[in-house]
Amino acid sequence: MILISDQKFMNIAFEEARKGTGRTWKNPLVGAVIVKNDRILSVGYHHQFGQEHAEINALGGLADVALAQGATMYVTLEPCSHFGKTPPCANRLVEVGIRRVVIGQMDPNPIVAGKGIAILKNAGVEVKVLNQTGKINDKYNFFYQNGRPFLTIKYAMTLDGKINQNQGKRSVVSDKESYHDAQKLRGQNQAILIGENTLSVDNPMLTVRDQKPIFEPLKVLLVNSADKLNAKSVIFNTQSDILILSRTVTNKKWPKNVEVVVDSEWSPKLIVKLLTKRGIQSLLIEGGSHVHAIFMASQLVDEIDVYVAPIIFGGGGLPAVWDNNALQIPDYQLSSKVNLGQDIKFTLRRK
Amino acid sequence: MILISDQKFMNIAFEEARKGTGRTWKNPLVGAVIVKNDRILSVGYHHQFGQEHAEINALGGLADVALAQGATMYVTLEPCSHFGKTPPCANRLVEVGIRRVVIGQMDPNPIVAGKGIAILKNAGVEVKVLNQTGKINDKYNFFYQNGRPFLTIKYAMTLDGKINQNQGKRSVVSDKESYHDAQKLRGQNQAILIGENTLSVDNPMLTVRDQKPIFEPLKVLLVNSADKLNAKSVIFNTQSDILILSRTVTNKKWPKNVEVVVDSEWSPKLIVKLLTKRGIQSLLIEGGSHVHAIFMASQLVDEIDVYVAPIIFGGGGLPAVWDNNALQIPDYQLSSKVNLGQDIKFTLRRK
Repeated sequence: MILISDQKFMNIAFEEARKGTGRTWKNPLVGAVIVKNDRILSVGYHHQFGQEHAEINALGGLADVALAQGATMYVTLEPCSHFGKTPPCANRLVEVGIRRVVIGQMDPNPIVAGKGIAILKNAGVEVKVLNQTGKINDKYNFFYQNGRPFLTIKYAMTLDGKINQNQGKRSVVSDKESYHDAQKLRGQNQAILIGENTLSVDNPMLTVRDQKPIFEPLKVLLVNSADKLNAKSVIFNTQSDILILSRTVTNKKWPKNVEVVVDSEWSPKLIVKLLTKRGIQSLLIEGGSHVHAIFMASQLVDEIDVYVAPIIFGGGGLPAVWDNNALQIPDYQLSSKVNLGQDIKFTLRRK
Repeated sequence: MILISDQKFMNIAFEEARKGTGRTWKNPLVGAVIVKNDRILSVGYHHQFGQEHAEINALGGLADVALAQGATMYVTLEPCSHFGKTPPCANRLVEVGIRRVVIGQMDPNPIVAGKGIAILKNAGVEVKVLNQTGKINDKYNFFYQNGRPFLTIKYAMTLDGKINQNQGKRSVVSDKESYHDAQKLRGQNQAILIGENTLSVDNPMLTVRDQKPIFEPLKVLLVNSADKLNAKSVIFNTQSDILILSRTVTNKKWPKNVEVVVDSEWSPKLIVKLLTKRGIQSLLIEGGSHVHAIFMASQLVDEIDVYVAPIIFGGGGLPAVWDNNALQIPDYQLSSKVNLGQDIKFTLRRK
């Protein structure tokens, strides 16, 4: 049973947590509220990756840290137990005399995962876990619960199922509103992957343009030969990290922000394995047709976002998804249909 | 300037006209209202192809035909001037002493086209044309104004632009609501065309199932060789007319309801020419990929209806529109987006 007052304060903590949206990168969004005698003494949230956690910010908001003595802390995520960029929060809560901690959800990250709660309980602090995630950290949770990043495929398609008008030529497909939505989607992912055909035809920057993020997504290029890439592609003008997955060895000297990893067998499974090892929690796949097809068939894609534009390109364009073989695709279900200008965005989720 | 009272009675005539929907086949929908001293004496409409016209039905509704003397008739379409299945209405209106005729639109059919109005005027009847079509006879009007049938392409497509899961295998794509809508579309067309691949893979009946029409659309099959068609296709179990457009001569004996026309050069243009000669006012094109592509490229398609279903088939299925060449497609614009269950129906119209 959840007390009405506990739920009320936890909701406020979730509101706090949301304030860090787009800035916490690989860290979860977290909010905290300090309450004594049913009155809120302070609130706080995790502002940015590398900076102080929500609990510490909330404590910092007290007129005097002595006020924490005997108080209840509402925090959306289990307080941490490890020395990372900051000292462990659980110890700090004990130190300042917090009497009761109400937690939104346990931290699925194995370096915490119950250890924060244990520290509190061992020190005699009363702990209650509400098991509410508020869905604010869905990809963070997914990553630790499934041991791999959350994969999203995104493309804009005409009413005849094409992503461009002529093979080998870039075409404008989607409405302005879809473009902005797609930019938002980029900002919600820690890595963006494209194939070499998309790189050469579309020549994209793969940057997040509407709201420049503090942490740019890692740009991942899946190619046959790193050395054959066009060095004039605009992507190489950007400063953020580029990871080239090449099927053949590279002899070139690459700039500091470009890393090449060679494997003759690059497959969705191997790519996901590599990204998992690097702690990438979310990957957005942005084409082309064949990359879509092999990822869909890999059974690893969790969400598919399709912007359908009410235009017709005719017979010769490149299909949105294409492979010579009929591939076994997992079952998806419609999660939402949204009007974006003249377009419709369909979101499918894994069943 | 249109008198308010004229508009009021014309609207009632349009309501009458609509009652014949789905039954007048190659004839237009027509409604008529007889008014004297601002009071409606009688209404009528064209019930069915081959039966009496709206004007005659309205006159028949009078307690005594003498009441028509000095009355005004509101009729949505110019009264006819020719002996067709029934004697000319214009003459009959003169005969019974109608003093004034208010007409919704002139009849674009060249066998009438102003001749009905001339008969009335020559007899001293006052005539007013409002130039309102009420859009109820859009395809009838199109046919006579453009000298060819109105062409619609219709298909159901997945979110990866496919019309089936594996080439050579029929797949269910659309939602139940889309299916019923597509049936309605069939009922609104005088002919339905498919290619031989669709015939062999889907094995469709091409009947209008939800509301059995009085006049079944003509079934048109575009094939390379009529003689190589599978005689067991369910379409050959239906009784309505089948027109096979074969690129090679036929040596088979065909049942009474099947006609084969041979031309080694069958193209959208030649097909439209043939159908025009036969007075077919509207053609629905129902696949497959290549038939869609060649018709789109022919510049002859006026409307494209696409049911987009939120499912993914993966790499190997047949694209909705497919041709080896990049084809020049005319410009279309979005006319409507409609939710049909989980699907969205997009309707594009020629710009």
